[in-house]
Amino acid sequence: MDLVLTVTNAVGIIAFSVAGSLKAIEKRMDLLGVITLGFWTSLAGGIIADVLLGKFPPSNLTEVQYPAIAIVSSALTFAFFRKVSKLRRPLLYAEALGIGAFTASGASLAYSVDPNPVLVTLVGTITAVGGGVLRDVLANEVPLVLTMDFSATPAIIGSLTYYALAYLGLFREYLTAVVVLLTFALRVAAIRGNWRLPTVAN
Amino acid sequence: MDLVLTVTNAVGIIAFSVAGSLKAIEKRMDLLGVITLGFWTSLAGGIIADVLLGKFPPSNLTEVQYPAIAIVSSALTFAFFRKVSKLRRPLLYAEALGIGAFTASGASLAYSVDPNPVLVTLVGTITAVGGGVLRDVLANEVPLVLTMDFSATPAIIGSLTYYALAYLGLFREYLTAVVVLLTFALRVAAIRGNWRLPTVAN
Amino acid sequence: MDLVLTVTNAVGIIAFSVAGSLKAIEKRMDLLGVITLGFWTSLAGGIIADVLLGKFPPSNLTEVQYPAIAIVSSALTFAFFRKVSKLRRPLLYAEALGIGAFTASGASLAYSVDPNPVLVTLVGTITAVGGGVLRDVLANEVPLVLTMDFSATPAIIGSLTYYALAYLGLFREYLTAVVVLLTFALRVAAIRGNWRLPTVAN
Repeated sequence: MDLVLTVTNAVGIIAFSVAGSLKAIEKRMDLLGVITLGFWTSLAGGIIADVLLGKFPPSNLTEVQYPAIAIVSSALTFAFFRKVSKLRRPLLYAEALGIGAFTASGASLAYSVDPNPVLVTLVGTITAVGGGVLRDVLANEVPLVLTMDFSATPAIIGSLTYYALAYLGLFREYLTAVVVLLTFALRVAAIRGNWRLPTVAN
Repeated sequence: MDLVLTVTNAVGIIAFSVAGSLKAIEKRMDLLGVITLGFWTSLAGGIIADVLLGKFPPSNLTEVQYPAIAIVSSALTFAFFRKVSKLRRPLLYAEALGIGAFTASGASLAYSVDPNPVLVTLVGTITAVGGGVLRDVLANEVPLVLTMDFSATPAIIGSLTYYALAYLGLFREYLTAVVVLLTFALRVAAIRGNWRLPTVAN
Repeated sequence: MDLVLTVTNAVGIIAFSVAGSLKAIEKRMDLLGVITLGFWTSLAGGIIADVLLGKFPPSNLTEVQYPAIAIVSSALTFAFFRKVSKLRRPLLYAEALGIGAFTASGASLAYSVDPNPVLVTLVGTITAVGGGVLRDVLANEVPLVLTMDFSATPAIIGSLTYYALAYLGLFREYLTAVVVLLTFALRVAAIRGNWRLPTVAN
């Protein structure tokens, strides 16, 4: 894994763990619930991707640094809840980096298993947003990404871009970095511009 | 896959996608949510079946026609919501065909992996109703199939019938077609007769 | 599987099935819903563990005695709801035995696949509490284990103990029995002492 992906992936795990922990605290979960929700919010997307691609056990459960980052981040959010809860705006940008990293790593893994555009797009997107969906399901809410959060669309565009560039053999060594940055930029634009997808006016 | 299964499977994917999309619109999801819910409602049952049987990546993610049908059906439901929402009654019958097709394909796949009556019945049933369960979980509702919808029972009977006939070597070439039609007929009878399973009067 | 594990595992499947069925009846599910919720409450933890470890099809779907116990226990709970619902206190202790058995069997299986402390702990814990989480998600509630139920912590301690003792080569033949009893004892102490993990006072 190249340097850009390593760094943004770690930032993403921290940000997603914090977001999951904040949701758990809002739902009055106990310490175990806070760590569990932080853990799955940051790592479930990659675990589901590994399962769909037939990689067992999933690397988010065996490479000790990922669970360690998730658990420590969640425990610190529990301990310093008041301070952390004031960081929601910077947290959104850190999460945006995570969406970029998770999209690139999921798309890259799927491409290496089967260079199929549908598979690459779905696995890249699930890696990026699957953890947030599980967070909301465990918090007994409709997943935010399905109702108003413009974060799956950057992951879809990032994954398709990964597929196209890999297929064309462009950017070889820098491919994951390009996709991380593109996805991140789209998500940041969506946050700043308050982008929304259309809904049916019913 | 024989002709009956191919046709009814496609009808089922369309009908389940439309049903998932209608639920998403009812829950005020955005375009991405509508397509996502349509997608998983129609394809998740088969994906879970493939995962339980150890088939990776699941064929609903790699055989491009299935995701394509699901995405197009969901997008059309979004675009023509008013017209589509008037078709709820015919939609029930199209879904019944899908329950037949999904039961037969799940039972058949499980039988080929391990001719075990419990496995065949569970995988056939999960293939048929798993997508609807995921739809309701993502819509933050108790799954309809667990409370009042008489659609798992036809799938259970269809799967057991598949096992018994395959074990006895009957109907060989026509086996999936027989199971599709039997399951469909049971589901249609349940719709017309407004069949209900008993509940505890508490 | 040694005798202690075999017996406590069967007790656990019965207790978890009854607990799932009672929740289903409380939610006014029909007979199929009651059996389904009993089934997944008792068997989903082990199924998820098998999936994460790459064991297909999961043994809870192929070894006929486990689904049979779950289905019969759930059907009896449906039939004798009034009597069974008076047994909630003894049920808690039977569930505690199940938490012990599921933890030991999950940790043991994970250790045999990859003797990694993180993997062993996570898989042992998921085996013990995953079914209860799925029960609550299907019942459209926030999982009890995340808010107040002190049952994941005994499973975590039991799993870590399994890893440490296996790594040190201690108790060899009696290892699963030691872990079953330790986890059970911790869970019973938590019930009797009404133990709670801290929450954020917000």
